[in-house]
Amino acid sequence: MAQKHTTRAEDYSKWYNELVYRADLAEHSDVRGCMVIKPYGYAIWEKMRDILDKKFKETGHSNAYFPLFIPKSYLSKEASHVDGFAKECAVVTHYRLKNAEDGSGVIVDPAAKLEEELIVRPTSETIIWNSYKNWIQSYRDLPILINQWANVVRWEMRTRLFLRTAEFLWQEGHTAHATKQEAIAEAEQMLDVYADFAENYMAMPVIKGRKTVNERFAGAEDTLCIEALMQDGKALQAGTSHFLGQNFAKAFEVKFADKEGKLDYVWATSWGVSTRLMGALIMTHSDDEGLVLPPALAPIQVVAVPIYKTDAELQAISGKMRHLGAKLRSRGISFKFDDDDNRRPGWKFAEYESKGVPVRIAMGPRDLENGMAEVARRDTKTKETVAYEGLDTFIEQLLADIQTNLLEKAKNFRSENMTKVDTYEDFKKGIEKGGFFLAHWDGTSETEDKIKEETQATIRCIPLEEDNESGVCMVTGKPSARRVVFAKAY
Amino acid sequence: MAQKHTTRAEDYSKWYNELVYRADLAEHSDVRGCMVIKPYGYAIWEKMRDILDKKFKETGHSNAYFPLFIPKSYLSKEASHVDGFAKECAVVTHYRLKNAEDGSGVIVDPAAKLEEELIVRPTSETIIWNSYKNWIQSYRDLPILINQWANVVRWEMRTRLFLRTAEFLWQEGHTAHATKQEAIAEAEQMLDVYADFAENYMAMPVIKGRKTVNERFAGAEDTLCIEALMQDGKALQAGTSHFLGQNFAKAFEVKFADKEGKLDYVWATSWGVSTRLMGALIMTHSDDEGLVLPPALAPIQVVAVPIYKTDAELQAISGKMRHLGAKLRSRGISFKFDDDDNRRPGWKFAEYESKGVPVRIAMGPRDLENGMAEVARRDTKTKETVAYEGLDTFIEQLLADIQTNLLEKAKNFRSENMTKVDTYEDFKKGIEKGGFFLAHWDGTSETEDKIKEETQATIRCIPLEEDNESGVCMVTGKPSARRVVFAKAY
Repeated sequence: MAQKHTTRAEDYSKWYNELVYRADLAEHSDVRGCMVIKPYGYAIWEKMRDILDKKFKETGHSNAYFPLFIPKSYLSKEASHVDGFAKECAVVTHYRLKNAEDGSGVIVDPAAKLEEELIVRPTSETIIWNSYKNWIQSYRDLPILINQWANVVRWEMRTRLFLRTAEFLWQEGHTAHATKQEAIAEAEQMLDVYADFAENYMAMPVIKGRKTVNERFAGAEDTLCIEALMQDGKALQAGTSHFLGQNFAKAFEVKFADKEGKLDYVWATSWGVSTRLMGALIMTHSDDEGLVLPPALAPIQVVAVPIYKTDAELQAISGKMRHLGAKLRSRGISFKFDDDDNRRPGWKFAEYESKGVPVRIAMGPRDLENGMAEVARRDTKTKETVAYEGLDTFIEQLLADIQTNLLEKAKNFRSENMTKVDTYEDFKKGIEKGGFFLAHWDGTSETEDKIKEETQATIRCIPLEEDNESGVCMVTGKPSARRVVFAKAY
Repeated sequence: MAQKHTTRAEDYSKWYNELVYRADLAEHSDVRGCMVIKPYGYAIWEKMRDILDKKFKETGHSNAYFPLFIPKSYLSKEASHVDGFAKECAVVTHYRLKNAEDGSGVIVDPAAKLEEELIVRPTSETIIWNSYKNWIQSYRDLPILINQWANVVRWEMRTRLFLRTAEFLWQEGHTAHATKQEAIAEAEQMLDVYADFAENYMAMPVIKGRKTVNERFAGAEDTLCIEALMQDGKALQAGTSHFLGQNFAKAFEVKFADKEGKLDYVWATSWGVSTRLMGALIMTHSDDEGLVLPPALAPIQVVAVPIYKTDAELQAISGKMRHLGAKLRSRGISFKFDDDDNRRPGWKFAEYESKGVPVRIAMGPRDLENGMAEVARRDTKTKETVAYEGLDTFIEQLLADIQTNLLEKAKNFRSENMTKVDTYEDFKKGIEKGGFFLAHWDGTSETEDKIKEETQATIRCIPLEEDNESGVCMVTGKPSARRVVFAKAY
């Protein structure tokens, strides 16, 4: 009898944590707020990274690498940036340890104090623009289209695996342009790349929108975002793309000469997604039995388990399964044949269910005799008996169906949990239960703050999608040109 | 007229630095000891990483990710390890900045002092074995075969781009085994992986050997290494693979139950290569004109430059070149057609020469008429006129020839600079000029220290290759079972 797991209905947060451990995705380390990403979790992240990296390169970007450390004074150069990031950062003050004189171990060597403290990067705008300063003289040096895959550190007091950790992995794109329009187009393009990735690989529908001034990135003129809805009705910001205007160029004195020789400050964008996407992926599809993965991101897409009593049976089934494996791999489908003799089939079924393997094949002596195999899909937990002949074609189609089904299911969930509200009373009642709420807002930070204080809900975004339905703010009754999206959020 | 560059003969070290800048590989950042790896340099590193990563996976390893920070006390748990790494590390002591009361900017918030300081990882044995402790109970949990791609920090006082930087990128494999033999076999296997990569991709011949006790990794029982010879006669350690015995298992109390239920400490290895390989690659092949890259690691393998006066000529040449490009790409060859109208062909030739692009094609109106193209190879700087028909096949073969030629050339250089010496006088005279010296040594640290002090040369390794030629130590006259390899080193 399998151990009893916490269900989503019982305790969503506990369900999430247990699932991350049970599926062997990550664990807390002994270092406050830092996680260990375990091989199975990292394999999913690698798939995400490779797909995104390809998309970045196809849109003309190159990877580079900038220092982990940022001199303290750099953070101060962009006024709103330092306010946003100085609060929560790891500060390096010394560069040497030495043996304690009393033999008690190693201590920080007071003689090795840095003249200027270094900050472990929470994001790299400052250190990168300090470099760009030397790279850019004329319009011929533009655009610069660079991305970096890196670790960053933000000292979080309350951490959750993948969703909020002190150290996390991410990519940060940093581009420099000769014109405002070009920079805005770049920020929009990268938002589209993220939205495409979320929907077509993660099978996670997202709303593309613009952040309010309150929720904007520290140092940006405009922050675009994709927002997803988790199964508990909370929103998750899955990616952001910032139009930085000339703020960082001004902070670091980065000017370029245009074709006429006229000097102007350079225009900038930055955009990023992180290992937080792992949390979004888990919370979009998984169920009480464990992880559910869209085939496009599954490290193992198909697992085969033999059911046998005798060695002869095992050998015959192995032959069939290995042959199938070769055919699937030639179609680019990842396949694992699990003939571990120490584990029973039932244990294996539960294991691969926990880990979200999209398709499981089982074959026993009777299947062998009948030229059949049992095919189980993880998303619907349905099983059917399928002819071994042509099984590779069947599975390829099945994987495509699962991918589509997961997106459809998530879209339906979102539709059911996206509500238009017109009164603040209805809003307050609704927001308790969770979901996206489309409501009119008067456009002021005051009203936004009041709503946040009273309901913990924030404006997730002002959708980019057109909306001609004007109205009045649900709180103040002042005019509103369009509805915006509210939710409680991760 | 091209700017005059420093030649290797004039000043090798200056030549190296200039080349790294000129080929746009990397640059010093404003952060002491940290470099910026620029897109072209990073593209080479990405090729190295992808090839190695594939080899690691083929030998059964998975990637994972462990925290950037290591609690200070962890370093102390393995006695020799702390001696080796505590000297040179970045220490995080605080987790918050705040605005100075006098408005002078941000300062470290004294209230946000960590109870225990965190070290930015110089290497991850301690943090990883602290995790493995919870992962390993029985022989069924073994082996653990994990690799991590990460940044590490070692506070170096004298830094050189790629060769020695405070922060660098690397991979570190950390494996756990049930038996000593299995761990030793793993360390040897990974050394072979490195040697194969060095020779067959980097076109850099290496000597596989074992470090002396003096040169061993802090915490290892045995350190295997690959050693390469640079063009200035200095050696470069290009990769290491350590058999760690049970040292870290004992430090972190990691025991496993064997099949009989008996408890024993786990056996370990670790192995790594870093962005230092970029320095090795540059110094093995490059010449006074700039970078020379083996085709297997070149981000651009073939560049084509049109030579034209009229638009009609450019269009005709472009058509031919794009058609060639498509054919090359379908063979997996990377191709760039540079039709930038702002640069003259001569400028482009010099540019791609600096950047080490293995093959350059030029086509002008006369070539077009004759159905020919000019093909120049970077390694030998020779040019020939080749029929356009079948050019893709010709180039594919040429790239293979260049790869082979670079390895042969490097092998010849090494043969010419690998000398057997029998007297300490000859050794001292020889070592001044540089190169590998095969000499007898009595096996003691005292003699090794004396030689290092008097000549700056170290024992690079005791080669794994068999050598039945016993003799007497060139310094003490005591018996020696075999020759070892001495050199001055990076």
